[in-house]
Amino acid sequence: MTVTFSDIAAAHERIKPHIHRTPVMRSHFIDQVVGAEVFFKCENFQKVGAFKARGACNAVFSLDDATAKRGVVTHSSGNHGAALAWAAAKRGIQATVVVPETAPMPKKRAIQGYGATIIYCAPNIAARQAAVDEQIAKHGFEMIHPFDNEMVIAGQGTAAVELLQDVPDLDVVMAPLGGGGLLSGTAIAAKALKPSIKVYGGEPRGADDGARSLASGVRVTEQTPNTICDGLLTTLAARTFGYIQAQVDGIGVASDENVIRAMRLIWEHAKIICEPSCCPPLAAMLEGTVDFRGKKVGIVLTGGNVDLDRLPWVRA
Amino acid sequence: MTVTFSDIAAAHERIKPHIHRTPVMRSHFIDQVVGAEVFFKCENFQKVGAFKARGACNAVFSLDDATAKRGVVTHSSGNHGAALAWAAAKRGIQATVVVPETAPMPKKRAIQGYGATIIYCAPNIAARQAAVDEQIAKHGFEMIHPFDNEMVIAGQGTAAVELLQDVPDLDVVMAPLGGGGLLSGTAIAAKALKPSIKVYGGEPRGADDGARSLASGVRVTEQTPNTICDGLLTTLAARTFGYIQAQVDGIGVASDENVIRAMRLIWEHAKIICEPSCCPPLAAMLEGTVDFRGKKVGIVLTGGNVDLDRLPWVRA
Repeated sequence: MTVTFSDIAAAHERIKPHIHRTPVMRSHFIDQVVGAEVFFKCENFQKVGAFKARGACNAVFSLDDATAKRGVVTHSSGNHGAALAWAAAKRGIQATVVVPETAPMPKKRAIQGYGATIIYCAPNIAARQAAVDEQIAKHGFEMIHPFDNEMVIAGQGTAAVELLQDVPDLDVVMAPLGGGGLLSGTAIAAKALKPSIKVYGGEPRGADDGARSLASGVRVTEQTPNTICDGLLTTLAARTFGYIQAQVDGIGVASDENVIRAMRLIWEHAKIICEPSCCPPLAAMLEGTVDFRGKKVGIVLTGGNVDLDRLPWVRA
Repeated sequence: MTVTFSDIAAAHERIKPHIHRTPVMRSHFIDQVVGAEVFFKCENFQKVGAFKARGACNAVFSLDDATAKRGVVTHSSGNHGAALAWAAAKRGIQATVVVPETAPMPKKRAIQGYGATIIYCAPNIAARQAAVDEQIAKHGFEMIHPFDNEMVIAGQGTAAVELLQDVPDLDVVMAPLGGGGLLSGTAIAAKALKPSIKVYGGEPRGADDGARSLASGVRVTEQTPNTICDGLLTTLAARTFGYIQAQVDGIGVASDENVIRAMRLIWEHAKIICEPSCCPPLAAMLEGTVDFRGKKVGIVLTGGNVDLDRLPWVRA
């Protein structure tokens, strides 16, 4: 199966009763700083505080009853885990989430708050996968991968649908790039609705496998990430790399310093809480690795789950 | 002159082209914590990051041309100063703001950013007044008092008008209480639109002159405030005390500990930035000094201008 716009439209109908229609917000100050008109799609206000509710909800509510009844499992550095826990609770089924020990405390609390079981693992992809495989072998759970899953990708694309409904004359849409589920769904949705639109990812320099993959044409499958963006540590799947190669116009890369600067601009001037992993798109505009001056730019602010005791601009 | 609902309606027409229609936001988590349905009127998203834009705008745009041309002056711990600077710039006239040396840095920067002149004074009411008097004597400026001014009170009341338009079935409206301009305007507007509604103030225990004045029937005119709520340090004016005695049903008082707890709840669960001075209403609900369980409660979130380097839950 290849995700098309009709899958995204179907996902939107499926998840609408459960998710928030999030607002689009602006800051004149930020517009002046970057020399563009920036429209923030505020998925930090989404259920579970992140766009991940969309994909997880679509995946869970697409399962047939027999599969759903066995329960679902995933691995996640945080927001997808909370989203799967929330979506499973909505459907009344069991969820198990494999979490790296290093995940931020509020994300762990959220997963447990929605009634899911947490299994801890070492913070690397091999350990995650092994723990998930063990759960599937033991309990017969259905794996809902955080991004390497067509129904998840279709669900994530619904944020761009709403953004373009609210701001049809956007020139550019940007989304952060981790595993590529959101950026894939965003590109499929945006290009279907408006073929002339440009779609860009935003990536921290310390986990820029996406930009390097796109530049070389060969998917980078291993990296040792070094960035504050704890939601963007993973590499692309073959599936998401395919969508991104086909439909994404480029990746803006930014230093963590500019990620923090972007985050602080959003907090101080848009007055909303967003997490570091939201900020590479605006950070890339600040850094000048993308040039959208004079354009209307939509940015998916992906989540607002921050540990308020460990803010990046406060020294410990 | 006594402020009536028609003054507030006129103010709303006057300022509408200049201000934001701010959203009403909710958090299911916070609702569960306090056992009520809470509707936040998000004036942290207002121009200059605070409801003060409403009153200042109404006052500045009500001046006749000859008076306006001489320029305006005020004293302010921050947000009213920025609001007056902004409103004066909108009208193309000069503003001078007397600021206590202790005011938070972002508020000082905002005042200067809108092109006003800052005059520093010691952080007490006598010093403020002396500095203002000197400016008036020297330059003939028109004083726009932060709350002891009918046009300012009428402007502040417009937030409650919008809140009740969006959520007509509120049982209670709460607003923070400092000098009483917002609470006066809120009470006049809300009781006119819905006579059965209850209107409450929220005050930090370290600056609870309003609650003590209302309890004793005698206005407290001197206090040595000790609270994190830097926007709520002043005592009531005779004028605002009159409106509050006549129309306000009670004051919920809260400790700074609960103010910080309320602030953190709003940041973590509503995902929006609000300043400590916003938080006494929710803090009073947490502390139980008001009991609105089972009710629909509107709260004016008054502003979002916080020094992100000095958050109250982070040890220096």
